[in-house]
Amino acid sequence: MSKSYNAVELIRKKRQKESLSKEEIEFLIQEYTADRIPDYQMSAFLMATFLNGMNNDEASAFTKAMLYSGTVLDLSEIPGTKVDKHSTGGVGDKLSLILAPIVAACGVPVPMISGRGLGHSGGTLDKLESIPGFNVNLNLDDYRRVLAKHKMVLIGQTEEIAPADKRMYALRDVTATVECIPLIAGSIMSKKMAEGIDALVLDVKCGDGAFMKTVEDATLLAQTLVSIGESFGKQTIAFLTNMDQPLGYKIGNWLEVEESIDGLLGKGPDDIMEVTHVLAGTMIYLGKKASSIQEGIQKSKASIADGSAFAKFRDIVIEQGGDVRFIDHPENYPKSAHVSEFKADKDGYISKLDAFSFGIAGLELGAGRKKKEDRIDPTAGIVLEKKVGDRVSKGETIFRFYTNRPEALDTVHELIAKAVTISMIGPKQPQMVSHKIDKNGIMPFNL
Amino acid sequence: MSKSYNAVELIRKKRQKESLSKEEIEFLIQEYTADRIPDYQMSAFLMATFLNGMNNDEASAFTKAMLYSGTVLDLSEIPGTKVDKHSTGGVGDKLSLILAPIVAACGVPVPMISGRGLGHSGGTLDKLESIPGFNVNLNLDDYRRVLAKHKMVLIGQTEEIAPADKRMYALRDVTATVECIPLIAGSIMSKKMAEGIDALVLDVKCGDGAFMKTVEDATLLAQTLVSIGESFGKQTIAFLTNMDQPLGYKIGNWLEVEESIDGLLGKGPDDIMEVTHVLAGTMIYLGKKASSIQEGIQKSKASIADGSAFAKFRDIVIEQGGDVRFIDHPENYPKSAHVSEFKADKDGYISKLDAFSFGIAGLELGAGRKKKEDRIDPTAGIVLEKKVGDRVSKGETIFRFYTNRPEALDTVHELIAKAVTISMIGPKQPQMVSHKIDKNGIMPFNL
Repeated sequence: MSKSYNAVELIRKKRQKESLSKEEIEFLIQEYTADRIPDYQMSAFLMATFLNGMNNDEASAFTKAMLYSGTVLDLSEIPGTKVDKHSTGGVGDKLSLILAPIVAACGVPVPMISGRGLGHSGGTLDKLESIPGFNVNLNLDDYRRVLAKHKMVLIGQTEEIAPADKRMYALRDVTATVECIPLIAGSIMSKKMAEGIDALVLDVKCGDGAFMKTVEDATLLAQTLVSIGESFGKQTIAFLTNMDQPLGYKIGNWLEVEESIDGLLGKGPDDIMEVTHVLAGTMIYLGKKASSIQEGIQKSKASIADGSAFAKFRDIVIEQGGDVRFIDHPENYPKSAHVSEFKADKDGYISKLDAFSFGIAGLELGAGRKKKEDRIDPTAGIVLEKKVGDRVSKGETIFRFYTNRPEALDTVHELIAKAVTISMIGPKQPQMVSHKIDKNGIMPFNL
Repeated sequence: MSKSYNAVELIRKKRQKESLSKEEIEFLIQEYTADRIPDYQMSAFLMATFLNGMNNDEASAFTKAMLYSGTVLDLSEIPGTKVDKHSTGGVGDKLSLILAPIVAACGVPVPMISGRGLGHSGGTLDKLESIPGFNVNLNLDDYRRVLAKHKMVLIGQTEEIAPADKRMYALRDVTATVECIPLIAGSIMSKKMAEGIDALVLDVKCGDGAFMKTVEDATLLAQTLVSIGESFGKQTIAFLTNMDQPLGYKIGNWLEVEESIDGLLGKGPDDIMEVTHVLAGTMIYLGKKASSIQEGIQKSKASIADGSAFAKFRDIVIEQGGDVRFIDHPENYPKSAHVSEFKADKDGYISKLDAFSFGIAGLELGAGRKKKEDRIDPTAGIVLEKKVGDRVSKGETIFRFYTNRPEALDTVHELIAKAVTISMIGPKQPQMVSHKIDKNGIMPFNL
């Protein structure tokens, strides 16, 4: 870096709603990463940004500075247009496990660096690790090798990827500066742009169980993400998808692997498969193996029907050290010690299942972490027998809780009792994919 | 403290423009002072407060929490109604040196704890220390003793007074959270309420050379200060006074002592004496030695005319160890090594003298500190031969710069050239005291 700035002056500018130049943002991130700007100045800057925002140029410079705080992978020696997907996080969201094999089976390389569960929302890495032996901690050489061999690879963030983000994320967590669109966008995109991809599909969750509760916030986040992706010359398409109730029927790490296997075998729940095919179809289109999203969706469905997607999943489990016998025979997987049934308290239709509460309930049962150090119980979780729109009778079992922590069950029953609404009239089924957002703008999405 | 809170949750509340309870604010300040809330959380809170403000109840709780972070003096054993004055800081503002002896000479005890120069604005302690031997570092026992003996005492902030403010002030300085009315108000009032006073007069400077540039901001600060003072049961009256051009004709530490001596001897400049008598008269009124501010002003003027104010100043200089020979013969004080004249570049009337630039010029000449560790040169400063409204001729000397740093003179000439406006038409004289603000509201002030 050639130019030097005064950190206090840069905080002052953001405080006064002035915009910062690319060089000024670079200076802040580089000096922070180098420990020459202390946490207390960065937290003042983050709060000023939270309250005064960033324009698209600033958000892009911010992402770039965090990206270049670490290694940026170059996968150009691997043939094909590399495409990844990122989801902003929800409850029961096991889509990566289904769509990565689909897209790879269709010939598009998927270099996927995933995260762990955060608060009420699950994480792909935790789900993969419920498969005995599955290793998500590949080094970057193995990452390339596996990708080249199988057109897919599933790993976690390494120390080399966006270290500035890692440090800043921890600071945001303790300074009430998490839920800020440009900061969220910078954190997501700095990691995605480091993977070596050529294009990106974004699943922006919207609803009670998502970080973005309203269509307005979700749209703004999607537009920011697309704008950043395009500013890096990567084709980026986002979808707003429903996260009012949990996705599918299973919540919990191994339970979600089971449901993913069902999906790959053509027996997946409608809501999951609808979103999966839209996202996978778009990835296949961006990966130049289809001339339209519609054609991509057809190929996605075909890869399920002909067994190639499931075969790809088996291959990657074996390659990354997982015990494939559990994939072939999920019924042999160990069970949690306790199962508790939740029964409907009246006749009617389920009109609401608050996804956030189901996420928290899963956490209490052992499927997530309250603190970073907590160990996850792979068998813990929730199986839903009924979902929104289903008719139920008083006394009928509608959910089952699986846990090795029986002491959590009272809390969970109480939590879920408040999260379920049973009404006399059947509700409208929610639309799973509502809008598509790309560089041309936002459009309602219809299959 | 009985109740415990989550610091992140309190930051979040302020971020969301919610107001904090008295207990929540107490928790933040106490835990911060005890080092259990780190700087990075406090700086996020300070920025959220800067941008979202505090209501009067919060500002009062904030002040109280900082006040009780240290010793709160009880001067009830000393007879009389103790009254102090605080100024928000300006250029050439030596009023404390004149009015404290006036008020004490009129029988009202003045327990004054002053500050040092800050940025472009001077500080009473630095001025006092230009008197050889003068000791501003009395302990609290000596503070009581001198006050009881002379009805006045002039010291600096001790370690015992509002330590939370001391630490927070340093943090605000490096996180761009200084110019925030509730934070400024809390900082000022926590120190003033610790002095053991019964009533307070506030000189809220307004204009180019003040921290508050507009009447609106100055009014809001004055109202906040009065509201806090009254919430502590102390009668508090504020005045908005002009700080567009420097006060008086002298800027610099010893130079301002000289001009204060002139003032005490009845030879003070009109602008200085006008504000001094209003503030001193109000202090005499609040100290119950006059039945109205008008009568207080008459007594103030009389104490100059009869020599009692000057005698009081001599007494306190002697009591606090100062060499009184320089008070009696200021002409014997050492001179700075370099004097440089600034000449008018055309004929006309001085229509503007930017006080801020004069403050910065004084700093460059050696009269202030750029960093905490810098030593002040007591002889450095500026003497103005002409002020706003005066007629000048091209080539006439209008200012003199005194310094031991000749290398600073080019910068200073350049700075002052931009700070002076000479016009064809004589300007209106500024009104020195524009408004009075007390618990009943704001009123235009006319002598």
